[in-house]
Amino acid sequence: MKKHNFFAGPAILPAPVLKQAAEAVTDFEGMGLSILEISHRSKPFVAVLDEAESLVRELLGVSDEFAVLFLTGGASSEFYLTAMNLLNEDETAGYIDTGAWSAKAIKEAKLFGGVEVVASSKDQNYNYIPANIEVPSGLKYLHITSNNTIFGTQFKEWPETDAPLVADMSSDIFSRRLPLEKFGVIYAGAQKNMGPAGVTLVIVRKDLLGKVKRELPSMLDYRTHIAKNSSFNTPPVYPIYVSMLTLRWVKEQGGVEAMEKKNEAKAKLLYDEIDRNPKFKASVEAGAGRSVMNVCFLPTNPDDLEPFVEAATAAGCVGITGHRSVGGFRASIYNAMPIESVQVLVDVMKNF
Amino acid sequence: MKKHNFFAGPAILPAPVLKQAAEAVTDFEGMGLSILEISHRSKPFVAVLDEAESLVRELLGVSDEFAVLFLTGGASSEFYLTAMNLLNEDETAGYIDTGAWSAKAIKEAKLFGGVEVVASSKDQNYNYIPANIEVPSGLKYLHITSNNTIFGTQFKEWPETDAPLVADMSSDIFSRRLPLEKFGVIYAGAQKNMGPAGVTLVIVRKDLLGKVKRELPSMLDYRTHIAKNSSFNTPPVYPIYVSMLTLRWVKEQGGVEAMEKKNEAKAKLLYDEIDRNPKFKASVEAGAGRSVMNVCFLPTNPDDLEPFVEAATAAGCVGITGHRSVGGFRASIYNAMPIESVQVLVDVMKNF
Repeated sequence: MKKHNFFAGPAILPAPVLKQAAEAVTDFEGMGLSILEISHRSKPFVAVLDEAESLVRELLGVSDEFAVLFLTGGASSEFYLTAMNLLNEDETAGYIDTGAWSAKAIKEAKLFGGVEVVASSKDQNYNYIPANIEVPSGLKYLHITSNNTIFGTQFKEWPETDAPLVADMSSDIFSRRLPLEKFGVIYAGAQKNMGPAGVTLVIVRKDLLGKVKRELPSMLDYRTHIAKNSSFNTPPVYPIYVSMLTLRWVKEQGGVEAMEKKNEAKAKLLYDEIDRNPKFKASVEAGAGRSVMNVCFLPTNPDDLEPFVEAATAAGCVGITGHRSVGGFRASIYNAMPIESVQVLVDVMKNF
Repeated sequence: MKKHNFFAGPAILPAPVLKQAAEAVTDFEGMGLSILEISHRSKPFVAVLDEAESLVRELLGVSDEFAVLFLTGGASSEFYLTAMNLLNEDETAGYIDTGAWSAKAIKEAKLFGGVEVVASSKDQNYNYIPANIEVPSGLKYLHITSNNTIFGTQFKEWPETDAPLVADMSSDIFSRRLPLEKFGVIYAGAQKNMGPAGVTLVIVRKDLLGKVKRELPSMLDYRTHIAKNSSFNTPPVYPIYVSMLTLRWVKEQGGVEAMEKKNEAKAKLLYDEIDRNPKFKASVEAGAGRSVMNVCFLPTNPDDLEPFVEAATAAGCVGITGHRSVGGFRASIYNAMPIESVQVLVDVMKNF
């Protein structure tokens, strides 16, 4: 039976990407070797790395003002790396607290400088994106989590601020167009919308670097990786390769603009059924910043929790159990999720 | 034509491992999903992580005194992490400088405490392992690079010291038996003898941790990863899976004791030809710490450099060009390299 993969991350990848990814493990581009056993300095892999960077630049419209890096350690490492690389002890950065990931970013940043939480939705267990935020001027940067995977919220408008935005986009990178001029840093663990686990994308405005007074270990200084094109040390070859294939696929699909339309259509299909069907209710109200990537909903009757998961599983839908801090259900419908699979889940809801 | 993969790293992996690794990208254990798109908290992957840890413990005889971690960032990250986690500013660690990797470890450690270089082979471009080293007492630890990939040297006896050894074993982990009781930390980037690029093995004696005064970001504190079984953040799922398959293969081959015998036989076959054949000379003299993993040699006549690479390439041998800082040739003959492939290279040398 075909599986419909609603996992929150690591998450669904496009079928043609997986096919090519499997072939490369057997024989990479006719080399007679697996991609898992070739030097990261061999020409075929250097070409992969170059193409991955070009695709990021093309798909998001990233100018030369920014560096594009492929690192490791996930968004969890960027929580401290962004502050470590940008914030001096006598300076202050702003943070918008929209859930568990923001809270972790705030905790790590406090080791390096002043942190001001300018808005938070903690009062309602993070089930909305704060609106009309008044951001004080003079912040070194303003940090946001563009999409919250756990609570199913997403920024629809970017906060007004005179500071560059630093954004954790792990769960919605490449899902929509971005006004790059507002951002200082964009980072994303690959394993939701870009590729498999094991690589982290960092897009950083170069003029923001080199201004902190602390001494940094080489590996923790973004400038090290910029100078060596993400190959100061051995990069995660295969995760980068599969990410490159996924970005190629995004381009073939029409780029992020086409993704944005498809993602909105998928999300509408699912939210409409949730709002219509008396057996379910959405975790996030309409207009409060409903995520187009992670649709969180609850059974009206708590006793329906397990039976619905069973009904969905019987239809081939996997990974729809909600995060333990929210409960209920979560359907993650990233770029690679076809609308046909969302329809399968909607049909299960209709028939439940 | 069959390729004989002498790359220094990322490097050859066993053929049956690659076969299973490719299958898992298409369908992982009959789940109907690729291993690239499943949650790191799903039962099948948690079982992979557990088995990987068990295999490390069984193959190397690692007791519960030690934690076994699967991290990212490579040995290059461990250069600073070991010092950051173990060394206070008013304490001193010893380092043995046997080449580029040691030198990098020394550089990074200096950010965190006192560093004393107790021996070095820099005077002869690192073509030997220092012997009869007198290590002062009272060091917090003594850092060594057990095998130098670039210069083809390898410690045959472990230095005498009252301090725990901290060892970068990126290029010879699982190639031979180890006296674990001498070690405080063993670390290794996977991509030479353990798996593909993208995961780092860290074996750390737990009682050494929690003694530094500095505040550490969560991701940089080994204790964070110990508490969460290497899943504080999303681990590099696929690199860990392929490493687990490789460790299973090592066990099936008879474990590290069997690997040790095979590796010695392969190295003897190649060094004997180098010593016998007037057209070649070894970079490292017999008795000076010749590596069993990376065999470095030079053409007696510099004009033979390119023709020999061409002859080897014609026979299917890839990756034998030496590192730019040594020149000549380098044949990396890790665990997964069959003796038949070494024989192919030896035959090319005989017929050259």
